[in-house]
Amino acid sequence: MIEKIYKNLKTTNKREIAKAITLIESSLPEDRKEAIALLTQVKAGDKQNSIRIGISGIPGVGKSTFIEALGSLVLKNEPDLKIAIMTIDPSSPLEGGSILADRLRMTSLSNHPNVFIRPTPTGTNHGGLSRRTRESMLLLEATGFDLIFVETVGVGQTEFHVASLVDIFLLLQMPSTGDEWQAMKKGILELADMIVINKADGDLLKAASRLEKILKLSFGTKELSPSILSCSALSQKGIEEVWDEIKKKVEDRKSKNLFYEKRIEQNLFWFENDLLDSFKEEVYSNKTIIKILDSFRKDLRDNKKTLSSLLAEDAVKSLLREDLLP
Amino acid sequence: MIEKIYKNLKTTNKREIAKAITLIESSLPEDRKEAIALLTQVKAGDKQNSIRIGISGIPGVGKSTFIEALGSLVLKNEPDLKIAIMTIDPSSPLEGGSILADRLRMTSLSNHPNVFIRPTPTGTNHGGLSRRTRESMLLLEATGFDLIFVETVGVGQTEFHVASLVDIFLLLQMPSTGDEWQAMKKGILELADMIVINKADGDLLKAASRLEKILKLSFGTKELSPSILSCSALSQKGIEEVWDEIKKKVEDRKSKNLFYEKRIEQNLFWFENDLLDSFKEEVYSNKTIIKILDSFRKDLRDNKKTLSSLLAEDAVKSLLREDLLP
Repeated sequence: MIEKIYKNLKTTNKREIAKAITLIESSLPEDRKEAIALLTQVKAGDKQNSIRIGISGIPGVGKSTFIEALGSLVLKNEPDLKIAIMTIDPSSPLEGGSILADRLRMTSLSNHPNVFIRPTPTGTNHGGLSRRTRESMLLLEATGFDLIFVETVGVGQTEFHVASLVDIFLLLQMPSTGDEWQAMKKGILELADMIVINKADGDLLKAASRLEKILKLSFGTKELSPSILSCSALSQKGIEEVWDEIKKKVEDRKSKNLFYEKRIEQNLFWFENDLLDSFKEEVYSNKTIIKILDSFRKDLRDNKKTLSSLLAEDAVKSLLREDLLP
Repeated sequence: MIEKIYKNLKTTNKREIAKAITLIESSLPEDRKEAIALLTQVKAGDKQNSIRIGISGIPGVGKSTFIEALGSLVLKNEPDLKIAIMTIDPSSPLEGGSILADRLRMTSLSNHPNVFIRPTPTGTNHGGLSRRTRESMLLLEATGFDLIFVETVGVGQTEFHVASLVDIFLLLQMPSTGDEWQAMKKGILELADMIVINKADGDLLKAASRLEKILKLSFGTKELSPSILSCSALSQKGIEEVWDEIKKKVEDRKSKNLFYEKRIEQNLFWFENDLLDSFKEEVYSNKTIIKILDSFRKDLRDNKKTLSSLLAEDAVKSLLREDLLP
């Protein structure tokens, strides 16, 4: 039955896909069981020719317009490609100005039969991205999407997680003075495979080309330096060059065996995160464990113990297999 | 032997105390054993008349000068009190301007025999505060310190952790326009028990009193609203009022049984954090567990599995006592 559902997804039935992701995002134990059954269908090697692209930038930089422009261009050139777009939930307080739903924001793409748009819940885990987002992405990929965009707002921790999720992490910038740029968190810039200066049009054209120069000077031309480009998503200028650069980067890495190696490294990175998350989930959903920990909590509540850290060490040890303890 | 060390600490031998904290902060397993032995000496109820004060504010707001002024005033009035100051490590890149060591910054306090100053390592765990900082604080308290200051820079996550560590969370502000104030993270303001506007002197006197009015208006006079005061740490103006307000708040909460109840709530909060940290520590230091997890990691590296989250769920289950699994 699960296999049938999985096969149905491959026909890009948007409603079925949306239902599958809702299942993955659900925190109900019975849903989780079904989600695991579904995700187990995803085999290593499924859809290895996909490209995962992270799009990051502060609110107002034009992320939706940029994805709309890039996606439309790709579909014009290669009409059979399937595109999935995972956007930041617009209800997030960080995306202040945006009251329009993503579907309204990306009008032409959202009506295209090959395009699936889904707001992703911003993570509650460690202030970063939910591991459910990664599961959804891998399902989307395995069921037939060739190009997957993950959109995120430029706020640190989430960027780091998105960069670990995608093949190409593209940072959108606005034309601004060098000073403003320097105030940006250096850490995020260093995550970028590509930095694209949007809104390079009209009055901002000069400022955009100045920022492009500054960025190029400061990064230099080392092997690992991000590509730096300008574009105007609104007028579609420079979008083709961005797409060419993405494809060039992907091909270059594939030729050096770096492309899939990076995905495996990311998998290993996520495994460490997932270990903690899985432990957390056991601790707060496994009834036997809850009961055991509650007796530790009682000692704290009754003020019998005062050092929570020592108590926690004992508590964790009491949950582990005896033969694992020294 | 540990008991002897512990007793030695109670004589406020600064060198012995510093050594004990170094032991707590060490990540070497043999040091940890000794640290646990030492910390086990800390009994619930030790030094219940201490006051823990968190001091937070952006770089340049005058945290060191404020602590110096407040500590000096307290010691003038009550010369037998013992004060411990846990400061942000000045080597932190966040405290940009500060190249002077804390001891140089708080000259008169650091030479006082009753005062112990210690830079705390900013946490590597979850971007917040290290649980070792909490252990150090509880040890300092149990071994005789009456007043404990924990200084921190205003950067979000750490604030939240410091607020969960102290009895009084005091936010230092600079005189500024209402606009600038509104740009501050509302979340941090809401953590504050007291907001103190420093540098209320000279040219800034007017701006300080305007900010005080704005803050008072916006918080109103609800039970849980923070106290709002102005002072000039440099000229010691208003410092006595700050100290009186701290004492008043502490006495008020004690009379309502809220003071110790809050400490217990904090203990419970930390226990949940410590659970995850302890698990993490087991995962990365227990050799048998490392070996088990490495075989899971190998499956990812060999690209036999692609969904790290499902693999992690299995991995965690393989570490738990069998009778805990459904």
